[in-house]
Amino acid sequence: MAQMPAQAAEGMWMPQQLPQIASGLRAAGLKIEPSRLSQLTEFPMGAVVSLGGCTASFVSPQGLIVTNHHCAYGSIQYNTSAQRDLLKDGFLAASLSEELPAEPGSRVYVTVAVTDVSAQVLDRKVQALRGKARFDAIEAIQKRLTADCEADAGHRCEVSSFYGGSQYQLIKQLELRDIRLVHAPALGVGLFGGDADNWMWPRHTGDYSFYRAYVGPDGRPADFSPDNKPFEPKHHLKLARQPLKEGDFVMVAGYPGHTNRHRLPAEVDFTFSEWQSSHIRLMGEQLALIKAATAGRREAEIALADRVAGISNGHKNMQGQQASFERSDILARKSQGFADLKRWVAADAGRQARYGADLAQVERLLAQRQEIVRAELLLDYVAPQLLDTARSLYQHAQQQALPDAQRKPGFQARDSLAFSQSLETLQRRYDEPVDQGLSAHFFAQYLALPAAQLNQPLLAALGLQPGMIEAAIKARLLPIYSGSQLQQQTERMAWLTRDVAAFKASDDSFIKAAVALYADDETRESRDKELSGQIGQAYAGTMRALIAYKASQGEAVYPDANSTLRVAYGHVQGRKGAVDGADWQAFTTLRGIAAKHTGEGEFNAPAPQLAAIKARQFDDYKVASLDSVPVNFLATLDTTGGNSGSPVLNDRAELVGLLFDGTLDSVIDSWDFDAKRSRSICLDARYMLWQMKVVDKAERLLREMKVL
Amino acid sequence: MAQMPAQAAEGMWMPQQLPQIASGLRAAGLKIEPSRLSQLTEFPMGAVVSLGGCTASFVSPQGLIVTNHHCAYGSIQYNTSAQRDLLKDGFLAASLSEELPAEPGSRVYVTVAVTDVSAQVLDRKVQALRGKARFDAIEAIQKRLTADCEADAGHRCEVSSFYGGSQYQLIKQLELRDIRLVHAPALGVGLFGGDADNWMWPRHTGDYSFYRAYVGPDGRPADFSPDNKPFEPKHHLKLARQPLKEGDFVMVAGYPGHTNRHRLPAEVDFTFSEWQSSHIRLMGEQLALIKAATAGRREAEIALADRVAGISNGHKNMQGQQASFERSDILARKSQGFADLKRWVAADAGRQARYGADLAQVERLLAQRQEIVRAELLLDYVAPQLLDTARSLYQHAQQQALPDAQRKPGFQARDSLAFSQSLETLQRRYDEPVDQGLSAHFFAQYLALPAAQLNQPLLAALGLQPGMIEAAIKARLLPIYSGSQLQQQTERMAWLTRDVAAFKASDDSFIKAAVALYADDETRESRDKELSGQIGQAYAGTMRALIAYKASQGEAVYPDANSTLRVAYGHVQGRKGAVDGADWQAFTTLRGIAAKHTGEGEFNAPAPQLAAIKARQFDDYKVASLDSVPVNFLATLDTTGGNSGSPVLNDRAELVGLLFDGTLDSVIDSWDFDAKRSRSICLDARYMLWQMKVVDKAERLLREMKVL
Repeated sequence: MAQMPAQAAEGMWMPQQLPQIASGLRAAGLKIEPSRLSQLTEFPMGAVVSLGGCTASFVSPQGLIVTNHHCAYGSIQYNTSAQRDLLKDGFLAASLSEELPAEPGSRVYVTVAVTDVSAQVLDRKVQALRGKARFDAIEAIQKRLTADCEADAGHRCEVSSFYGGSQYQLIKQLELRDIRLVHAPALGVGLFGGDADNWMWPRHTGDYSFYRAYVGPDGRPADFSPDNKPFEPKHHLKLARQPLKEGDFVMVAGYPGHTNRHRLPAEVDFTFSEWQSSHIRLMGEQLALIKAATAGRREAEIALADRVAGISNGHKNMQGQQASFERSDILARKSQGFADLKRWVAADAGRQARYGADLAQVERLLAQRQEIVRAELLLDYVAPQLLDTARSLYQHAQQQALPDAQRKPGFQARDSLAFSQSLETLQRRYDEPVDQGLSAHFFAQYLALPAAQLNQPLLAALGLQPGMIEAAIKARLLPIYSGSQLQQQTERMAWLTRDVAAFKASDDSFIKAAVALYADDETRESRDKELSGQIGQAYAGTMRALIAYKASQGEAVYPDANSTLRVAYGHVQGRKGAVDGADWQAFTTLRGIAAKHTGEGEFNAPAPQLAAIKARQFDDYKVASLDSVPVNFLATLDTTGGNSGSPVLNDRAELVGLLFDGTLDSVIDSWDFDAKRSRSICLDARYMLWQMKVVDKAERLLREMKVL
Repeated sequence: MAQMPAQAAEGMWMPQQLPQIASGLRAAGLKIEPSRLSQLTEFPMGAVVSLGGCTASFVSPQGLIVTNHHCAYGSIQYNTSAQRDLLKDGFLAASLSEELPAEPGSRVYVTVAVTDVSAQVLDRKVQALRGKARFDAIEAIQKRLTADCEADAGHRCEVSSFYGGSQYQLIKQLELRDIRLVHAPALGVGLFGGDADNWMWPRHTGDYSFYRAYVGPDGRPADFSPDNKPFEPKHHLKLARQPLKEGDFVMVAGYPGHTNRHRLPAEVDFTFSEWQSSHIRLMGEQLALIKAATAGRREAEIALADRVAGISNGHKNMQGQQASFERSDILARKSQGFADLKRWVAADAGRQARYGADLAQVERLLAQRQEIVRAELLLDYVAPQLLDTARSLYQHAQQQALPDAQRKPGFQARDSLAFSQSLETLQRRYDEPVDQGLSAHFFAQYLALPAAQLNQPLLAALGLQPGMIEAAIKARLLPIYSGSQLQQQTERMAWLTRDVAAFKASDDSFIKAAVALYADDETRESRDKELSGQIGQAYAGTMRALIAYKASQGEAVYPDANSTLRVAYGHVQGRKGAVDGADWQAFTTLRGIAAKHTGEGEFNAPAPQLAAIKARQFDDYKVASLDSVPVNFLATLDTTGGNSGSPVLNDRAELVGLLFDGTLDSVIDSWDFDAKRSRSICLDARYMLWQMKVVDKAERLLREMKVL
């Protein structure tokens, strides 16, 4: 068995790696056989599912699913209107028939197989190719493998890249399409503390909600229908009976989205010295503009709520990373590590032959890409949302003219439902005054750049000139907004079936602009693919060198997170000296809710909850040493975005909580893990059950989970 | 010796009480003889001085005085202009000649004698009087005792009421009048954390500044003159050489302003159920209006800075008290205690004869006063500042017509300098747009009350009508503002020497209004004195009953704080479970400054300080266990507003820090002390010395304090 990394808690392990680290898991406290965790279709892994961006788990034989409130936020918002404010008041379906369709595009993915396809993707032919040819060849193989896999109806497949494109795994997932909202607590519980407490400890957020997956009468994945019935998963998680306490073993199974643990120093430097600080500024401006433009308009606030939550979260995350980075020696260590790697390669002729060229190329190629990213930074902020919609629709029409296998990813038959649903969802998320304000604001910054740097086709398509001020831009964009029908859902959907000629003949202003921009969009995409092909090759070689170098030192390497199923383990643990002048305890309690409650804004606990706290109605959920019900807890778990909603399991793989956040000085973990510093923030299942039983009277669900 | 209260740390003891509690002080760790602390003109008490509202102490034989930055804030602001921003950049006089006059009216008071005058004040004649007659008689005796005492030139005397008017002490203080600003750190040190961190832990505020007291060439108190020389105090504090650590004994000597430990349940109830919540709302509105009206006007911001700081502080204090009260059982305990007292009195015929009538009256009388307070709540907020100035000036003229001994307190010869200086200070604190905005805003609320409740003379004097809206009020007040010359300093000062007839003949709009309001102002004052006389008698009887009751249980009673010299003692101590989910450590360090620094607003540490922290230039001030320099510390000291700037002394009475704040859940201590919960926040002297030596290079002062 390979040596464990220095910090036992570090690592987002692929399930198939777990038998390799079995003794570490046992030493940490795991009571079940570690090898059981590598069997994807058995207990407990068979109960862990992806929502695409979040993690969730089955908690009953009738397809009941628990995840975070913030993961179900879009669906709660989707079902909220000014008349029926589910976001504010929460929702509890009294019966199956009252369960509400989740937002369009909602899916539950159950991983059923993971197959190493590195040899097929990086075959001899691919290895001979360079640049865009290499990129296209890999994409073609990925599409073929995916298509073959998806021939098994009701499944979604993906070829995922591991270790910087040096390994590929084919992930096969059962795709459940009829997802319904079952229960969400009031906003004052599910989002208690809001943005003020986001990434913070002490924390008191009841970040849970319930979905249910439905299937057709035949038991197979199906679109929504009143005739559908609850899906019956082979496995589901049971709630822990033994009390959780500080020092206890815990693990999470989930779908962490993205980490950068193996990034090169040049990438670290670029990210922290310019890229991220630019985005921090721009996102801050977005938030301020949206807030000002929706003030006093409740409908617009509801429409933008999901987007604001997303930007706020990213904004605070980046600020936290930036602050941690500036206090750290990450870049120095990364630089030292990369220098060591280069020396190790250079010290041996065979290694030099195998890796030398890639190592020599990779930084130069990354610098080229950084140049492009730098120049096009503002392009992500300027475009009106409907212009991007029009571009997608025109791309869609272009791609429909091709045989399915030759279409770009995202425009194949397998993507069409998600694509049309995204067009539908726009209806509830779009607010024209906000969109106009954002576009004009950021165009004013963009047009102030030296004229030679500007994207002339974009300016031409929208009739803009270098140097224009915001008022002029707004005036120029106004007729474009009013000259388009794309804000109307029927009109937007109609373009799904129109051909390229129809687009070219249209006088809809955004469609016209999209047609005009098409050639330049394609040119830039080709340029990016050429560079990605070159980088991909050099990067894969560099990662192979790194793995070989680490192996020569007896170290196992877990891959960076890439939204595939992983397991992390650690312990429930507070943190001494977490903040200068204060220590963090492992648990918070109901007391803290009453203490933080102001009755306003983000600290507005529901009155019945406060009454139950005041009356000390702790039911069976009181922990004597806390003299209250535990609310949230800290654990040394290596997690990141995408892990949200992940079940936290005890040493017997029983459900003890839901992972929902990390502390602000843990967000730098994305680049550099430190178990001494890093803490994940978890909802304690006892708080969820207490709130459901004592306050929200969710007996139906508690009985279904065999808690009542 | 009387039994100590249950919590050793509770109590703001009069110096003369300390020999009584000597064994408690020794048990807590005091190494010097406790009786030394009752000798006001000896070390260390002789070094402790009052600034009138704050405490300070001599720290050199040349009259150098250390206090809090927030206590010197007014003087720093007074010397700040848009050209020379001492508030932002700090100030360090390079020599005596560069030391700047403190704001007008600045005083240093050195307590030289405390004499019990209860028998003289509450003599047989007074005891036979009732209502206003009693009030006036006591006031007359107080004035006489004060005048006799102040016959000793250069002294300020006051007869202070203790135990709710049942005891009186004559306090005699040396009054130093030429006070100069010597040193203040940059705002990013002295007010680091600002309002966000006010009342908070962990804390990192460098809340210190230096004054120097000057005297005439003859060594006696004198007004400012270039010929004056530094005052040479008989005693000054020495900085501690032994390191301070958690668990160590500490004590504070200072001038706590006001507590309500012995208030009756009816007063507690009125305060928390209505009075305080009304003021929280109104002060919040004041702050918002001032902020909006000064935005972008740096001169106006500077003018209002002191007032904004005062309101903010009070606002947060009240909110903290309110929150603590609502989570507490204070009212129930107070009610129980008062019921017990009444039972104890009723159980004995002698006690019933002595206290029964007062106990029976006191609550009814307090309810009458509450009725008036309730009705006149908004009167404190509505009046234009210059109208109140005009009223004071007219009152001044009225009083000048009387022999000095018959004038009202505040208008005697002994008050004239302070009065004229307050008229001067107004010049730098007044902003007309802010004043107009506040007055119109609150008048709109006032005039919306039922017409029968309104003060008709006030409406008549300003030409206002019941029900007027804000715009109409503003329009009506505009000519009154423009019809007055009182905003001009020379004009304002000229009214000091004019007689009543001149006021009556004036057509200055605010003077005319003041003359018109005089009769009603006098009537209301007489009404209040009548009630105060009645309450004073019943209240004093009730307090005598309480002291007798406690004595019967073997308990000593310290008096409520009343701005007289007190000593409190306790220990350096963090707090387990201070916040749900977190523990407080006893010390913060320089690390926390770097961690909190954002470069903006209230968390903007100076660049040279950050550089010194980054370079770990800890000089001699590093504490090994903290691996840094301590910045602030927590202690179980019973303190309140007025204690700000108090020297914190170790077991040998050496200076280890300055008290500057309490934690937010300690503000309720004003009503109800709890040593388990309560913590005072102190500046660690090592941080002050480190900043002065390593960052600000204040060698002259460090040498003077014998630290260099």
